[in-house]
Amino acid sequence: MAAEQEEGLKLLGVRASPFSHRVQLALKLKGVQHEYLQENLENKSQLLLKYNPIYKKVPVLLHKEKPIIESLVIIEYIDETWDGYKILPHEPYRRALARFWAIFIAEKCMYTIWTTAWTFDEEKREKGTEEVSEILKTLENELKDKLFFGGDALGFVDIVGVFLAFWFPILHQVLGLPQLVVIENFPKLYDWSQRLLDLNVVKETLPPKEDVFAAFSANLQRSNNATK
Amino acid sequence: MAAEQEEGLKLLGVRASPFSHRVQLALKLKGVQHEYLQENLENKSQLLLKYNPIYKKVPVLLHKEKPIIESLVIIEYIDETWDGYKILPHEPYRRALARFWAIFIAEKCMYTIWTTAWTFDEEKREKGTEEVSEILKTLENELKDKLFFGGDALGFVDIVGVFLAFWFPILHQVLGLPQLVVIENFPKLYDWSQRLLDLNVVKETLPPKEDVFAAFSANLQRSNNATK
Repeated sequence: MAAEQEEGLKLLGVRASPFSHRVQLALKLKGVQHEYLQENLENKSQLLLKYNPIYKKVPVLLHKEKPIIESLVIIEYIDETWDGYKILPHEPYRRALARFWAIFIAEKCMYTIWTTAWTFDEEKREKGTEEVSEILKTLENELKDKLFFGGDALGFVDIVGVFLAFWFPILHQVLGLPQLVVIENFPKLYDWSQRLLDLNVVKETLPPKEDVFAAFSANLQRSNNATK
Repeated sequence: MAAEQEEGLKLLGVRASPFSHRVQLALKLKGVQHEYLQENLENKSQLLLKYNPIYKKVPVLLHKEKPIIESLVIIEYIDETWDGYKILPHEPYRRALARFWAIFIAEKCMYTIWTTAWTFDEEKREKGTEEVSEILKTLENELKDKLFFGGDALGFVDIVGVFLAFWFPILHQVLGLPQLVVIENFPKLYDWSQRLLDLNVVKETLPPKEDVFAAFSANLQRSNNATK
């Protein structure tokens, strides 16, 4: 993967964010160099407010001064704009499946994990835990004996799935989620997660574990203070 | 548009549903004939449970006995599988914009309208109404002086936007939403909505107004009973 120079390509992101990471990983897979601009969400830059006035969120990819927003939309844009590594499969049915599972992880799975993790209402947490367990079972069944969701190589679904391999165990550590939903309970999913974390492209783009741990801990502290 | 015969192409849908309609409209634009199977959500068919075990929802497109799920994913699949009418633009940046706005309408806009319409908590409704008004302003600004969101012809965003042209005014009628968010208050959006409803492909695929009115009224009746 020869790094391709791309004049004026900028990524507005937050290092500890799984949403920003997806885009960094997609750019790395394509070998496209870019300027990375770290955002402070407590004090958003003029650039972020100008280019994403609707959501005011990261990631934003700026290419030839035109903004691309929403991480899944950005990944498809990267795949269609630069040659090299193929992130989405070529065949329409396999593309549809990749989109379906990417959305499943990005929305249903992450949303359920997130809301379950950050609720301190016992009943809701119990119900959420069951749902998370069902979702992980569904992913385990979908993965079957494939090396990656994308088949033999990392693809669209795996890029989104890095959340499960990296962020999810840290969330567990910080919040003490029930054992039921530890990723180790899902052997295929667990092996896949280790395979993901072993890839150099993934290693080189992930934020330091301590930063994510610190971000979740600060969030926990804030929510403890809010409920006191 | 010559109708193309497509052996074994089936659509599982619900006639009054805007999600099913999107797919019918996309197939109509391509001139692809299919068998339409009406689902009863109170008593789901074995076919629906078999092919969409995760969500158990419509629409499901069955092509060569393989299911495609999630309306936006289905539309992209249709666009990539059949020649003829181009639903998404070819150029990557314009494709990214189309995806962004389609998601904006399908998720943020419809979700906010729906939850605002069906809440009977006055404070929440007031806040929701303001949000809906902001969203419609955003769409008005995006539309500018274009005939369609897709430019001179109906595209991905417009297909999803039929909800605003057809379902939204009926929702207004049934639930008496505040005047603030009547589509007539947004002149460009209103003209666009009339332009959409005037197209034969749209007319020929829309369900009868009375059916949607009846479905919303039944929903209102159920929610009135539930809160009594």
